[in-house]
Amino acid sequence: MTGRDGGAPIGPIGNTPVVILVRPQLADNIGAVARAMANGGLFHLRLVAPRDGWPQERAWRNASGADRILDALTLHASVAEAVADLQHVFATCPRPRHIIKPLLSARGAAAELRLLAARGLRLGILFGPERAGLDNDDMAEADALIRYPLNPAFMSLNLAQAVMVFAYEWWTAAEQPVARVLMTNETRIATKAELENFLGHLTRALDDSGFLANAQKRPGMLRNIRHFFQRGEVTEQELRTLHGVISELGRPPRLLD
Amino acid sequence: MTGRDGGAPIGPIGNTPVVILVRPQLADNIGAVARAMANGGLFHLRLVAPRDGWPQERAWRNASGADRILDALTLHASVAEAVADLQHVFATCPRPRHIIKPLLSARGAAAELRLLAARGLRLGILFGPERAGLDNDDMAEADALIRYPLNPAFMSLNLAQAVMVFAYEWWTAAEQPVARVLMTNETRIATKAELENFLGHLTRALDDSGFLANAQKRPGMLRNIRHFFQRGEVTEQELRTLHGVISELGRPPRLLD
Repeated sequence: MTGRDGGAPIGPIGNTPVVILVRPQLADNIGAVARAMANGGLFHLRLVAPRDGWPQERAWRNASGADRILDALTLHASVAEAVADLQHVFATCPRPRHIIKPLLSARGAAAELRLLAARGLRLGILFGPERAGLDNDDMAEADALIRYPLNPAFMSLNLAQAVMVFAYEWWTAAEQPVARVLMTNETRIATKAELENFLGHLTRALDDSGFLANAQKRPGMLRNIRHFFQRGEVTEQELRTLHGVISELGRPPRLLD
Repeated sequence: MTGRDGGAPIGPIGNTPVVILVRPQLADNIGAVARAMANGGLFHLRLVAPRDGWPQERAWRNASGADRILDALTLHASVAEAVADLQHVFATCPRPRHIIKPLLSARGAAAELRLLAARGLRLGILFGPERAGLDNDDMAEADALIRYPLNPAFMSLNLAQAVMVFAYEWWTAAEQPVARVLMTNETRIATKAELENFLGHLTRALDDSGFLANAQKRPGMLRNIRHFFQRGEVTEQELRTLHGVISELGRPPRLLD
């Protein structure tokens, strides 16, 4: 995909959320997503395991000049890899499921993401594959879920329409006043890779302890643990403390001397 | 298009704005528009002079089950015909032009249309053809223009994305409290056909008077007159008065007896 002219200019980029398409099926839709993004001032696109591989000429043909977004996108093997450097990740979830996670409207999510972006956090938003949507493991990677208020009797957005609504809300949210005061901490919000590292540490410790010995229950239990740690914003400092806790708890009891 | 099963159920219909696609080019887009509409609780679709004729099987294939909307849509030869029975018509206008008409955001328009719908008015919203958009004559048929707040450096929605944003705002507006008190008048807002009838009367009177004798200036002058009368809500009673005024002015001066 070299030698392109990069398409139309698309405006200043800044700290805007990364759009992450999880297992997208159709290259046409990936192109239409890029177009929708550019309309709403979103420029960073990542693909997780696109079904038909990448690049696909059809995507550029469907992007209406938002070529720069397609030229610059990155490919990832897993959701975990795609969010590793991000600090706050939202997942779109058209059908409500029984997951204990904050649930936001598109408007609420856009307002919150604007606040987080103003604090300099690196943000992402996950969109699931056509038809199926995100699965439970995908959603476990997110800090909060987004559900659009739409006609419950007919809820069937295509991928680009779903991105369009979010991109539109993202753009519109910039026109609303920011009400909350920005936090300035001594520490910083952990990246997803740091959190992942901690969850790996915790999982090993739990495996060693025999806590996860029931093979049938193991995936569900791990998912619940993940959900818990994703729910709030964990700081890098807190994670270091938690690492210490796990290491300490996992050690064989010390003998008193 | 008989013998269809009508697709998925799409919820209660009620007094919702009519979506009017003006000279749409691609049947795929018409189907995608129906899908977007159903998501936002819009059900009435009209087509003005679709380029490739109608019906087109591809539209149904692209509607994702919003078949009822396509089954029930009506075809019209002109914008004037498509809006004849409506009382308030908005036009989407991506690029600002020099037209003296109220200009609303998508959110503002949705809120206003909810208020008008609650008063029982019959409403419509015009979407222009792919690429070109509505022309000046199309916009002259509208009471107000809608412009979406989107990235000015890259403003290129496809037709279904444009309808999606409006449908989303329409649905979301129902969740906001209605602030204004509903008007109850002795009379009612005129239909577009009644307004058209009046404008025809006025045009004939102006032609007879020689006011429109300059053939080159005639279309622009008529458009300006139309814009003026579309700007506010004209009631049926006011139109009857205006008819009287024109008839009276057009009559040869009476001789004193």
